Amino acid sequence: MNWIDELPEMGRRAKIAAKALAGATSDRKNKALALMAESLRGNARAITGKNAMDVEDGRKNGLSSAMIDRLTVTNSRIEAMAAGLEEIAALRDPVGEIDATWTTASGVTVSRVRVPLGVIGMIYEARPNVTSDAAGLCLKSGNAVILRGGKEAYHSNSAITAALTEAVVASGLPHGAVQALSARDREASVAMMRLQDIDVLIPRGGLSLKKSVMENARVPYIMTGMGNCHIYIDESADFEKARSIVINAKCQRPGVCNAVETMLFHDRLSDGFLESLLSELTRLGVEIRGDERTRGLCPASLAATEEDWGAEYNDLILAVKSVKGIDEAIDHIERYGTHHSDCIVTESYTNARKFQSDVDSAAVYVNASTRFTDGGEFGFGAEIGISTQKLHARGPMGLEQLTSIKYIINGDGQVRG
Amino acid sequence: MNWIDELPEMGRRAKIAAKALAGATSDRKNKALALMAESLRGNARAITGKNAMDVEDGRKNGLSSAMIDRLTVTNSRIEAMAAGLEEIAALRDPVGEIDATWTTASGVTVSRVRVPLGVIGMIYEARPNVTSDAAGLCLKSGNAVILRGGKEAYHSNSAITAALTEAVVASGLPHGAVQALSARDREASVAMMRLQDIDVLIPRGGLSLKKSVMENARVPYIMTGMGNCHIYIDESADFEKARSIVINAKCQRPGVCNAVETMLFHDRLSDGFLESLLSELTRLGVEIRGDERTRGLCPASLAATEEDWGAEYNDLILAVKSVKGIDEAIDHIERYGTHHSDCIVTESYTNARKFQSDVDSAAVYVNASTRFTDGGEFGFGAEIGISTQKLHARGPMGLEQLTSIKYIINGDGQVRG
Repeated sequence: MNWIDELPEMGRRAKIAAKALAGATSDRKNKALALMAESLRGNARAITGKNAMDVEDGRKNGLSSAMIDRLTVTNSRIEAMAAGLEEIAALRDPVGEIDATWTTASGVTVSRVRVPLGVIGMIYEARPNVTSDAAGLCLKSGNAVILRGGKEAYHSNSAITAALTEAVVASGLPHGAVQALSARDREASVAMMRLQDIDVLIPRGGLSLKKSVMENARVPYIMTGMGNCHIYIDESADFEKARSIVINAKCQRPGVCNAVETMLFHDRLSDGFLESLLSELTRLGVEIRGDERTRGLCPASLAATEEDWGAEYNDLILAVKSVKGIDEAIDHIERYGTHHSDCIVTESYTNARKFQSDVDSAAVYVNASTRFTDGGEFGFGAEIGISTQKLHARGPMGLEQLTSIKYIINGDGQVRG
Repeated sequence: MNWIDELPEMGRRAKIAAKALAGATSDRKNKALALMAESLRGNARAITGKNAMDVEDGRKNGLSSAMIDRLTVTNSRIEAMAAGLEEIAALRDPVGEIDATWTTASGVTVSRVRVPLGVIGMIYEARPNVTSDAAGLCLKSGNAVILRGGKEAYHSNSAITAALTEAVVASGLPHGAVQALSARDREASVAMMRLQDIDVLIPRGGLSLKKSVMENARVPYIMTGMGNCHIYIDESADFEKARSIVINAKCQRPGVCNAVETMLFHDRLSDGFLESLLSELTRLGVEIRGDERTRGLCPASLAATEEDWGAEYNDLILAVKSVKGIDEAIDHIERYGTHHSDCIVTESYTNARKFQSDVDSAAVYVNASTRFTDGGEFGFGAEIGISTQKLHARGPMGLEQLTSIKYIINGDGQVRG
């Protein structure tokens, strides 16, 4: 079926499923998650087979090594996806929790109850594990989900969704609980941004997706995953901390949104330390794009352009710039950053406090790698994305961030005076 | 100055003010609020004078009596506005509150801190008191605000904003903290919906505003104030409770969003009770628009059309329909409602529980007037609007709903393994 006919029908199915899911007990949802995990394991051969087609296409189309890493599904990654679903089953179910009940001056009782959002639309990059994580988190939080993954992962996502849907249906929940839009063209995303059956759209991705969402979305959305993250090495920084944090934040997994993209350093930092750090980064395969001062310290570095300060490389590239001090660093982050994760390396109590107060980002670090901005690392169990907006959710989004509230009010005939 | 030139400049000023406000102590903000209250009192004559111009225009242009009521500013209403600002000053300041701090498995400390949203854009109906309430709530929660009230209240809002801004500046806070867009044309609202300096837009109003926001907004928004509220009188209802709740919800202040617009009743309810209720409503000046059954009970009633079920009258008009039972009532509310406030009048425990579980609205009542959906009545101290969306805030929005959070993370050089 063509997606143009398919999408409205998916919306209707999702709405029906959302009603069933909103009323489903935790037990029922957990059983579905267990079956979903088993189904991924049982279909591992089919999934890796389909994934090999995507990876081959990706190499032909010149995807970066970081992108290929995000795209690749191995048996151990399928096991991680399945284990992830089982971990989600073990998490506390937020739906139905009453976080407050009080009696008002008029004598009515007001309770605030946690409820699902309804139908969630996910538009995300070519990372097949997100398909499984998102399906699991949405189902556990009582939401139906319509998935639309990056076209580079088309075959992988189809295979994963087929395995998940099979399990959902086997568990007795409606087919519409987990659906994937089987379209590779961009217009399908735009049509999804306008589908009125979607209660909340969660786009994960970079600047071009953000622009498209801003222009086209006609449903509420939460922008996630835009990460132009900064590390500022202050004058008083401990060199060893600075070295290991920068290397970890850049090299450990460069393709993800909490990797660092720009390093700022105080212009009075010792040349010796900076030369050794930049040459170590170069040895680790990092391309340095620097301002004049940086290029003096690191002969291998290219000249940074204005564009580099705003870039999210998702690759082994680092923009590097000297600043006159913390104020210039904060201004640079405000001007070019995406309000995701930013870090200061400092031994100054005052500067640590100032940086955390004045940098307006979801996660503001002192002396720790930006790579920690993650639902799992934060202890939320899992995450569906990292919000870079201030509305509804900011930072890693776990189960609770996939819910809303409603007020239930009980009276005995009270009226307003 | 023309608003086309003015708006970008207002955005810049608001951004600067937002930074100052985010760092302002509660003391400083409370002093500003006290001065704002005094300034309203001191400028009462100017404000009521300007308001008289708006009211006269409104009468000429045929505004309904409910609309004229919302528009009118008297000395006692100015005193209420001033007292409202003083009450806001007395509320707990949510900014800077840390609601959780924990140490992760990696040994970093994570704290969740409440922060302002930044710059708030308010588009609202012709209710001058909202100008003062919104300015006070935004300031207390550390946000700069750009106000754009209904054109029918143009002169009143200009006078009120002038009084408020004078006080803001006198308190030492930046002029950009409270600004009003001095334009009467609709394009000004559309331009505001696209102003990138606005972090969150809060539109208050009906369906046409909602459609315009959906089509035009390029900034995150929270829809508020669309209230097609229902009261369903169940078969087992206590007649006296039903009577007083319906009359209160319709007549006490028909121009506001938590007033009831449609009454549904179980078709086995006694004719005698229904006839007496409908005739009492008619005596109180309520125009009844009913289905066939209703018209049989109330000769004065007009025939309801499909449009009536979806209408938010904001006036002394009530749509009335018989249903076969609770399921049909819930379906009707789901189909035509705005997910604001809906009520069942019943003595059935099971139906009370079912209604509150299955009706997907911000506030779901058993045996109490929908008029209680209000920040003041709920005990939030004050409200900037009533959200009818599920994202970020649902129901009455007080100070906390005007904030976001950020994570601050402290380490000693930790990196991700």
